[in-house]
Amino acid sequence: MRVEIWSDIACPWCYVGKARFEKALAAFPHRDQVEVVHRSFELDPGRAKGDIQPVITMLTKKYGMSEAQAQAGEDNLGTQAAAEGLAYRSRGRDHGSTFDMHRLLHLAKEHGRQGELIQLLYEANFAEERSVFDDGERLVEIATTAGLDPEEVRAVLADPTAYADDVRADEREAAQLGANGVPFFVLDRKYGVSGAQPAEVFTRALSEAWGERSPLQLLDQDGDGGDTCGPDNCAVPSRP
Amino acid sequence: MRVEIWSDIACPWCYVGKARFEKALAAFPHRDQVEVVHRSFELDPGRAKGDIQPVITMLTKKYGMSEAQAQAGEDNLGTQAAAEGLAYRSRGRDHGSTFDMHRLLHLAKEHGRQGELIQLLYEANFAEERSVFDDGERLVEIATTAGLDPEEVRAVLADPTAYADDVRADEREAAQLGANGVPFFVLDRKYGVSGAQPAEVFTRALSEAWGERSPLQLLDQDGDGGDTCGPDNCAVPSRP
Repeated sequence: MRVEIWSDIACPWCYVGKARFEKALAAFPHRDQVEVVHRSFELDPGRAKGDIQPVITMLTKKYGMSEAQAQAGEDNLGTQAAAEGLAYRSRGRDHGSTFDMHRLLHLAKEHGRQGELIQLLYEANFAEERSVFDDGERLVEIATTAGLDPEEVRAVLADPTAYADDVRADEREAAQLGANGVPFFVLDRKYGVSGAQPAEVFTRALSEAWGERSPLQLLDQDGDGGDTCGPDNCAVPSRP
Repeated sequence: MRVEIWSDIACPWCYVGKARFEKALAAFPHRDQVEVVHRSFELDPGRAKGDIQPVITMLTKKYGMSEAQAQAGEDNLGTQAAAEGLAYRSRGRDHGSTFDMHRLLHLAKEHGRQGELIQLLYEANFAEERSVFDDGERLVEIATTAGLDPEEVRAVLADPTAYADDVRADEREAAQLGANGVPFFVLDRKYGVSGAQPAEVFTRALSEAWGERSPLQLLDQDGDGGDTCGPDNCAVPSRP
């Protein structure tokens, strides 16, 4: 079974929702047969690479909130995160483009390190003092901790086209699947869970998707099966 | 869309079927959105690592064929392979355990090199004079050509438990999906194609699976959506 999770590193509910999903997954009896894939979704795709602002400033400028409203939202997120055992720095975080991080997550996927990298990126962005947006070397450091090769990471960061198409393809697919916001969880392309729902919702989604793994519909040219090899030799079915 | 292909390196129809599938895929308009994953299936799982025989001998001993029947089967496979533009050495090939190759294919998957490695293994087994079963160094050479790190490959070969569970999990899943022989193609866990069918069957399977990508069924605790971040901020839906 495969679970795809569309999310953005700059999305606090993605950070919280991932923890809730993982709580459900850890208790799921068939967890060893569940493959998790992280997909790209930028909340602020128009933001230029060097355009960095404090989160509170961004919230007041972009959404017309008062500073108190913006801070209250951050404080609420800190409470929700703490309830999942997650550190959350509700004051002084920065906001910026996450495009490079998504490109690195695609590199990490090729090396089987995507799960490690996304968790470290969340923790760096939401819990650590040093901004993930400061310079590329911060990302090199995080990606290296996740098990990637620093030279390969630097090469990807230096080439803005590297994995760019993969990020865009994920984003197009999110739109096709009807995701307007993130996190967005998709189980076997059959069930969707939108948002940081309680762990019980993920438990139910995992169980239902598991139970309804449908029998395959076999396609065949002439109904006699194709040429296969099996335990009894490589038989060529007799054709009419 | 995801296509999973269960196959064995020792399976001639897998080699031929892969070429037919790839012909269909190359002409499929949405090919850039198709992910191909190779899954393990051993035709001869009971065979010990050092137990190597000429293919013709294996066919006569294991299936009670005459030598002429076995050779005629190989010659037919050579003809089918040639029709797909594939080299096939229908005389003098060896048969042996493919377990180590499947373990390496799982290593290659983690490095995004699975497609390269499986093709090189097929070509080495079916078209090249030097046996892939001779010793581990032949596999190291092939895996290195596929882009893997030789030291990492040697470490996996030296540890028979490395990726062994992944191979077994693939094989269990093949049985659950109803595959008795290989190649076995599964599209989005919805459509199956058994055997080296003509390219047109794969074309139809790709089109049908693409067209029937079903809308997701959204699961939700109380019908008001979960907490998400979207282009309009990280809104917390009002709960009753």
